[in-house]
Amino acid sequence: MSGERNQKVKARLLKGMQDSWPELARARREMLSEIEAVCRTFGFLPLDTPVMEAREALLGAEPSAEQLANIFHFENQDKEQVGLRYDLTVPLSRLFCQNFQDIPRPFRRYQTGSVFRWDKPEPGRFREFQQFDIDTVGSASLAADAEILAVVDAIFRRLQVRNYVIRFSNRKILNALGEYCGANVQQGRDIYRVIDKLDKFDRERIRLELGPGLKDESGALIPGLGLDVDQITKIDAFLDLPNSGDANESLSAARSLFTGNQLGNEGLDEIEELISMLDAFGMRGSNWIFDLHLARGLGYYTGPVFEVTLTDLPSYGSVFGGGRYDDLVERFLGEGQGVPAVGASVGVDRLLAALTELGRIDQRRATSEVLVTVMDKSRTADYIEITSELRNAGIPAEMFLGGGNLQKQLKYADRLGIPYAVIAGSDEFEKSELSIKDLELGRRIAEQVEDRDEWKEQKQQFTISRSELVATIRERLEASR
Amino acid sequence: MSGERNQKVKARLLKGMQDSWPELARARREMLSEIEAVCRTFGFLPLDTPVMEAREALLGAEPSAEQLANIFHFENQDKEQVGLRYDLTVPLSRLFCQNFQDIPRPFRRYQTGSVFRWDKPEPGRFREFQQFDIDTVGSASLAADAEILAVVDAIFRRLQVRNYVIRFSNRKILNALGEYCGANVQQGRDIYRVIDKLDKFDRERIRLELGPGLKDESGALIPGLGLDVDQITKIDAFLDLPNSGDANESLSAARSLFTGNQLGNEGLDEIEELISMLDAFGMRGSNWIFDLHLARGLGYYTGPVFEVTLTDLPSYGSVFGGGRYDDLVERFLGEGQGVPAVGASVGVDRLLAALTELGRIDQRRATSEVLVTVMDKSRTADYIEITSELRNAGIPAEMFLGGGNLQKQLKYADRLGIPYAVIAGSDEFEKSELSIKDLELGRRIAEQVEDRDEWKEQKQQFTISRSELVATIRERLEASR
Repeated sequence: MSGERNQKVKARLLKGMQDSWPELARARREMLSEIEAVCRTFGFLPLDTPVMEAREALLGAEPSAEQLANIFHFENQDKEQVGLRYDLTVPLSRLFCQNFQDIPRPFRRYQTGSVFRWDKPEPGRFREFQQFDIDTVGSASLAADAEILAVVDAIFRRLQVRNYVIRFSNRKILNALGEYCGANVQQGRDIYRVIDKLDKFDRERIRLELGPGLKDESGALIPGLGLDVDQITKIDAFLDLPNSGDANESLSAARSLFTGNQLGNEGLDEIEELISMLDAFGMRGSNWIFDLHLARGLGYYTGPVFEVTLTDLPSYGSVFGGGRYDDLVERFLGEGQGVPAVGASVGVDRLLAALTELGRIDQRRATSEVLVTVMDKSRTADYIEITSELRNAGIPAEMFLGGGNLQKQLKYADRLGIPYAVIAGSDEFEKSELSIKDLELGRRIAEQVEDRDEWKEQKQQFTISRSELVATIRERLEASR
Repeated sequence: MSGERNQKVKARLLKGMQDSWPELARARREMLSEIEAVCRTFGFLPLDTPVMEAREALLGAEPSAEQLANIFHFENQDKEQVGLRYDLTVPLSRLFCQNFQDIPRPFRRYQTGSVFRWDKPEPGRFREFQQFDIDTVGSASLAADAEILAVVDAIFRRLQVRNYVIRFSNRKILNALGEYCGANVQQGRDIYRVIDKLDKFDRERIRLELGPGLKDESGALIPGLGLDVDQITKIDAFLDLPNSGDANESLSAARSLFTGNQLGNEGLDEIEELISMLDAFGMRGSNWIFDLHLARGLGYYTGPVFEVTLTDLPSYGSVFGGGRYDDLVERFLGEGQGVPAVGASVGVDRLLAALTELGRIDQRRATSEVLVTVMDKSRTADYIEITSELRNAGIPAEMFLGGGNLQKQLKYADRLGIPYAVIAGSDEFEKSELSIKDLELGRRIAEQVEDRDEWKEQKQQFTISRSELVATIRERLEASR
């Protein structure tokens, strides 16, 4: 498909797309590899599904114009309507239903990959981005929900993040609020959406959104749910319940409020059972909080919901979240044909950005520890041998493959962050010696990170015998770890 | 985007797409992880680019109908013509040219990801499939070519594949054939395409394709290159040169043939230099062969080319291949503005299928080593604790999260290939004991893999004290490794 002579084309990325340069690509691989290792310890299975799905699998048979505007979709050469997946949950539902008779149950899987949304691009927000999902399909047991929380907890511990909070609640509690305050079905269904805004707006604004609505800056009406004053007062009473992290206090206060409310009590029972299981998972005293107000934005949750925030980075909001969604497969199986399912999803690049800000990510671009410089092209075979010797000893190394003098070669090493350079010209070859340059030390001196007295005594460049190469580099790499 | 009530939708994969079930997804991750580890040892940098590119970046400003028919392309919401990448080389060229001033040179990167082609689906051939590429852009040094061969060699060694052959040649040699036999420019450009068919067709058929052409089964003319008898005789002489793997013999014979032919001698010089570098890379005596006839199908190669075949699986053809392509960036930089580049590409799933056939892939679906069965739901917390104890000791384990009796739970373990089950009912809890069932042994007995006398003495199920759990499982897992 190449080789034809055509007019020149501008090399550019499409709007909303990003290249992941080595620093990012490397950090992402390392983070995902840690997360996957945790999932495997919990016995979850890896799965991959295609990027492309039938449009009706993604959005149902009769998608709205708004739904269509939010995804990448087109007609393919077979005149089929197809689209690029916008999450990893819908493809899982499709796969589960497609293989309904044969799939192991419960089906516990993790998956990572690109998803695509036709969003307005913003800094840090792209139209193609990576998600990581973990789900258990086919288990109604709350142990499945607790296990997902335990996986998430283990992931943050494995990533060496200390200051995180896993907040959880149960969608049934907010759904019960509708019954409790006598809202109609539609109002009851929307209460969680308003309460989800507690982070952003004050209580007065919430009251207006529950009731008559309010005017925005332009004077246009933002319609409210239309609840009356008595109803809003009851919701206020719920929002005033103690919610400071003492689960027993919140539970018993909510029990009093929901006396006789079956759905509310079911939700609270499930929370109690969930908490007892977290204890069994060894999460007693872990960073979890029962948060009565937790809503989670998505409509499809049916039971426990949760999200994770980083206490050192509140502006990042939720970096990991999920919950139980027992009805999502209805699109494929028909209404009322639910399959119990629970899962969690993380925006990989957002979590990566957060970890970077927390200093938990190695920012170095290079994979090589040593650059073998080329001082004399006729000695190429010797330089290759030096490089191979390092590699064979397990030390990532590269020989400089470009053209240019030593200065240019060392600049290349600096740009990539390669810590050591090996320098050998005719002098060194004659004496069976090598020069080693500690580029990392040079960088620290240049940035004045190193204490002056200390670095004065250290040599940035020194000579060793040829046979000491591997031992010298290995020793210094181990010392700097 | 979910939760709306719509008519039921059939759960199906699009034609030509595949789900990668856990056995495959797991094996692929493990294989890629080994390949990536090798690339890092050689100092190559990871890179990721978007799945979607501007159509003109993929196919140039004026693509032919045939080119368009071979890729996935569409107009997006911004009325831009876009397409899904069909390889990982074009996006690399686009990225390199887009960042022409700033990119480190040479730029040595590896990349893996999905590519998309509108091919006719066949067994094992999909419209979305994984590629793994490694390239060095910006180095004209033959050491870069030799290094790619060394990486490929190291990859096969790391994958514990013994019987492979790396065949290489130089496109310049086949291009020189045109001059040598006095072909015109167009004929000269096409000779390599005909010689590329030596695997499939006999010499007589090759002669017809070089000359007047031939009729296919339906009687339609397959046009030939139109070379005359004298010219074809000269090509025959080339094809008759010794080519049995003795590089020195082939080189000196080709030198005689190409006396005075500058391009031919340049190609042969490069081969000699390449071979001397392979020696320096420690590949002396490795599985490489200089193969004068090697053509490689793609038009864009300009220098050394190579491919890898598995001697135990000749039907798989080339499982890894590549070469030097110094002109590929011309689309973005303009004609004559070449950038030296060399690389290799592997069809991940094809290599995986080959490794599976060679028995080099762990076919097990499970990631858990132990299934903790649930005999008494009121004891859930105890089962969770048993499971957590195993996990905390680094032994992947899961508690059964579905419903059903012991038989059903063990069937689940068998389907996934989990080797051990822990069984604990009220009896066991009372005595602080656990039953362990060796499911793997059970499977081997059922399949009569185990020698009867030996397994008779072994117990498939036995009781241990609760405190011996981790030690017992660990010991047995280590013994079976």
